[in-house]
Amino acid sequence: MDAIKRIDRGMEKAIAFATARGRPPILADALKYAVFPGGARVRPRLCLAIAGACGDKNPAAADSAAVAIELLHCASLVHDDMPCFDDAAIRRGKPSVHIKFDEPIALLTGDALIVLSFETIARECALTPELIGPLIATIGRAVGMPHGIVAGQGWESEPEIKLEDYHKAKTAALFTGATAAGAIAAGADPLPWMPLGNALGAAYQVADDLHDMKAESGDMGKPCGQDANFERPNSVRELGVQGALEALRKRVEEAVEAIPECKGADMLRALIRNEATRLVPKNLAHTAA
Amino acid sequence: MDAIKRIDRGMEKAIAFATARGRPPILADALKYAVFPGGARVRPRLCLAIAGACGDKNPAAADSAAVAIELLHCASLVHDDMPCFDDAAIRRGKPSVHIKFDEPIALLTGDALIVLSFETIARECALTPELIGPLIATIGRAVGMPHGIVAGQGWESEPEIKLEDYHKAKTAALFTGATAAGAIAAGADPLPWMPLGNALGAAYQVADDLHDMKAESGDMGKPCGQDANFERPNSVRELGVQGALEALRKRVEEAVEAIPECKGADMLRALIRNEATRLVPKNLAHTAA
Repeated sequence: MDAIKRIDRGMEKAIAFATARGRPPILADALKYAVFPGGARVRPRLCLAIAGACGDKNPAAADSAAVAIELLHCASLVHDDMPCFDDAAIRRGKPSVHIKFDEPIALLTGDALIVLSFETIARECALTPELIGPLIATIGRAVGMPHGIVAGQGWESEPEIKLEDYHKAKTAALFTGATAAGAIAAGADPLPWMPLGNALGAAYQVADDLHDMKAESGDMGKPCGQDANFERPNSVRELGVQGALEALRKRVEEAVEAIPECKGADMLRALIRNEATRLVPKNLAHTAA
Repeated sequence: MDAIKRIDRGMEKAIAFATARGRPPILADALKYAVFPGGARVRPRLCLAIAGACGDKNPAAADSAAVAIELLHCASLVHDDMPCFDDAAIRRGKPSVHIKFDEPIALLTGDALIVLSFETIARECALTPELIGPLIATIGRAVGMPHGIVAGQGWESEPEIKLEDYHKAKTAALFTGATAAGAIAAGADPLPWMPLGNALGAAYQVADDLHDMKAESGDMGKPCGQDANFERPNSVRELGVQGALEALRKRVEEAVEAIPECKGADMLRALIRNEATRLVPKNLAHTAA
C-alpha cells in the first residue's frame, strides 16, 4: 500500500475512535474538519519513508507513529491560527477551525487531537509494546517543552528570539521526531536519522519564510505576510530573497548528504530532491532554477 | 513516603524536564505557576491509594500515572479559565495563568502540560514497559474524545446537554481513569475499580455544584456562580440545596460500597469517608450533618 493510503487509513481509524457514539457532535465535526482533507502529509510520509528505508519491520507501529505526528501537526495548526496567535482566517484553502466553528471549539479540537495522537500509539502498538515508550518519548519531545513545537511557539512571547533556536523548535523538531520515530518503529537506532530530520526541517522553515514573504495567498491556502505583521524572525528579511533561496538549496543538499547508508538510501535521496522542487514558491521558481 | 510527597516529587521531576536548558523562559515560568503550589491533589492521591490497595507492586509506574493525571487536571483548569470558556480571573486563590501571563502563554501552558503528562509515563516506566500502553490508553480515554474531559467541555457548545453525560465526561471520567490507572500500575485488573471512580467523580461534581451556588469565593479560590452565568446544568438548580446534599451523601455511600474486597479496603473506606467531609461547603456543613 502506498504511504498516503496508509496515512489516510490510519487517520480515519483514529478519528473514528475519537468521534464514536456518545461524543458531543459539534466537537466531533470539528475534529474531522481539522484533519480532512489533509495537506501534503509531509511529516507522516517522511516517517514512513524512514521506516521503509530501515526495513519496515513493524508496519502497524510505523503507521501509528505517522498518524500521531500528523495529528499533532494538525493540532498545532488549529491552535496557531487562533486569534491570540496568528489570527489566520484561512487554512488549507478553507475557513480555519475557529472561523468555521468558534474559539472554544478550536481550543478543544487542538487539545483532543494532542490526546488522540498519544492514545493512537498506545492502542495501535499492541503487537510491539516495547516500542510504545520510545515512540511516545520521542514524539513528545518533538512537540512539547522545552524544545518542541510548543516551545517554538513560546519563543514568540520572549523579548528576544534567536532565529535558529526558534526555528529548530517550531519547525525542525517535528521533522527530527518524524525521522527518529520512523527508525524506532522499524526497530532501528534513531540517532543516525536525526541530522536528516533536522536539515529537512530547516529547509521547510526557509521555504515557509519564502512563501510568507513572496507567495500569493492562493498558492498557500493560508494568509501571507504574517511574519512581518507579527514582527517575527524570517530568513528572507535576514538574508534577502536570493540569500534565502541559496539557504534552501544548501539545506536540501545537507539533508540528502545526511541520509545514512542503508538499502533504501537511493529511494530516499530521490524522494527528497523531488520534494524540494515543491518547496519553492511558484513565482520564484525561475529564479531558483 | 506519603502520597503527597510522592506526588510532589514526581511533579517537580516532570516540570524540571519540561523547563530544562534551552526553554523559552516565560512559558517555563508559566508551567511552574500552573502546577505549584497545587490544590488538594485529589485525583493523583486517589490513583496512589488504589495502587496501594492493590499492593503497589510498581511504585514508579504508579507515581508516573498519578503525576500524568494531575498534569492533565492542571492543563484542563488553565484552558477552562481562559476568556473563551469560563473567563475566570482567579484559580487556587491567585490570578489565573492568562491573567498573570497572557492568553497565548495560557494556551501553550495547557498544551505543554498535556504533552508532558504522556511523556512522563513513557519516560518513567522504563522498568515496566508493558504498562505504558495500558496506562496511556486508559488516561487518554479519561481526558480526550469521545468521553473524557475535553468531550465534557465540548458538550457546553451543544444546544442541548444531558446532565449525566455532561458530568460523566467533564468530571467523573478522570476519577474513573485515576482508579483504573492505579490498579493497572499495580498489575491488577482495572475493571473492578472503575465503579468506585465513577461514584467518586459524581460526588465531586455535586460538591462542585454546591460550591458554585452556595460557597463564598474565599472558600474556593475561584469565582462562584459560574454555572448560572453560563446557563450550564447544575445539580443544585435541578434538585435544590437539600436534594443536592442528599445526592452527595448517596454518591459517597455508593463509592464506599463500590470498593472491591482487597487488603486495603478498610483503609480506602476510611479515606473516602474522611475526604467526603471536606466536600461540603463550610456554610452548609450544619445542614449536611
